[in-house]
Amino acid sequence: MLSKQQIKFINSLKHNKYRLKYNCFVAEGSHVVNEFIKSNFKLKLIISTNEWQIKSKVETLVVDKKTLKKISFLKTASSVLAVFYKPDTILRLDDFVIQKYAILLDSISDPGNMGSIIRTSDWYGVKEIFVSKKSVDVFNPKVIQSSMGSLSRVRVHAIDLIQLLTQLKKKQVPCFGATLLGEDMYDIQKPDCCALVFGSESHGISKEVKKLLDQEILIPSKNKLIDSLNVSVAYGIILSEFR
Amino acid sequence: MLSKQQIKFINSLKHNKYRLKYNCFVAEGSHVVNEFIKSNFKLKLIISTNEWQIKSKVETLVVDKKTLKKISFLKTASSVLAVFYKPDTILRLDDFVIQKYAILLDSISDPGNMGSIIRTSDWYGVKEIFVSKKSVDVFNPKVIQSSMGSLSRVRVHAIDLIQLLTQLKKKQVPCFGATLLGEDMYDIQKPDCCALVFGSESHGISKEVKKLLDQEILIPSKNKLIDSLNVSVAYGIILSEFR
Repeated sequence: MLSKQQIKFINSLKHNKYRLKYNCFVAEGSHVVNEFIKSNFKLKLIISTNEWQIKSKVETLVVDKKTLKKISFLKTASSVLAVFYKPDTILRLDDFVIQKYAILLDSISDPGNMGSIIRTSDWYGVKEIFVSKKSVDVFNPKVIQSSMGSLSRVRVHAIDLIQLLTQLKKKQVPCFGATLLGEDMYDIQKPDCCALVFGSESHGISKEVKKLLDQEILIPSKNKLIDSLNVSVAYGIILSEFR
Repeated sequence: MLSKQQIKFINSLKHNKYRLKYNCFVAEGSHVVNEFIKSNFKLKLIISTNEWQIKSKVETLVVDKKTLKKISFLKTASSVLAVFYKPDTILRLDDFVIQKYAILLDSISDPGNMGSIIRTSDWYGVKEIFVSKKSVDVFNPKVIQSSMGSLSRVRVHAIDLIQLLTQLKKKQVPCFGATLLGEDMYDIQKPDCCALVFGSESHGISKEVKKLLDQEILIPSKNKLIDSLNVSVAYGIILSEFR
């Protein structure tokens, strides 16, 4: 039986304010919930239309479809909703060792795009992403859904991008940024290790961040009439080319 | 002044049934509306918070913000909403001359993905797309929004994909399909001219269509724990690689 308080608690997690307060987030659907469980995310609550066998001591609250529909954040409720504790992703920038890419996202605001970028990162083996503090919260339910569980493997750090870029430049890591006035990214030489910066859907990369780039790059268009690509698609194309 | 009948008419265009009945669709936001006007789409109605100077004889119905918000399909209403007639895209398959790619979409159901695919196609100069009849209607308001006006330049044909593939094979056009068991797409030789097939978000390419492929291709993942990429991102990556 689900208490009124539990319903209120789950519902509050739609909002970042309460995700910060309780340090929790909601995941829905058996695929997504399973991904977080497999990645050892600490489970707080699991509500399902059927019993789940989980290693942790958390018991499934079995409810009927109607109840699950009532608490679900999705248009079409699935058979399971779980509340997890946010992971500990505190990272001292000084400790960050760049593997191949450092991915920096400057104010991505659409949760669908953010989720898709996290999913693509996971596909290409990117383990850490840095987002500016103005970006959409990655524990937003829509980000969780569109990342399809990849957030259980990719660590996202909300930090000051200027600080990180300054540090990367000190270490002589080349910093590329996707802009509409950059050089043809198919033609440029790709280093083994670099920073890739992507800007917001409506304003691109901010002035302050742009100043710190070594090179602006562009996916050239075959059509002069169109002025931009979706940022999550551009991200996939550039990551593929730099792989 | 907007009549009750006009409001009812606009609202009905949320549904495919009425888009078919009236042969019309809704576009919102000055960028998107402008793209359709520039591409000479026939305008039926334009409602805005300010006067629009348009070559056609259609006059702007100037309304206040509150009224526009009431009729808007968007969460955040913009300053303009227009109703256009659907274009004439009747194409006899026999008349179709493949330029570089023939793009075939087998049951893409998410309007955001469909819109993003149309936008990416436009970016890479693809002028025609073929979609199975089970795909989401491209005049769905969410497709219009996420394609960002690119639907004004890319012609989309809802047809029988089996028939088109059979015909392409007769003409010896190589047919590739993106699947999860295909060959590494970075390694294969890319012909100058080919068909590229993409399947639905949940079920991939249907059995019947798969039978007609010459080769299944895959974007290889660096992470065994993840099982799929977003279809609109995969589309961008593959189109970029085959460009």
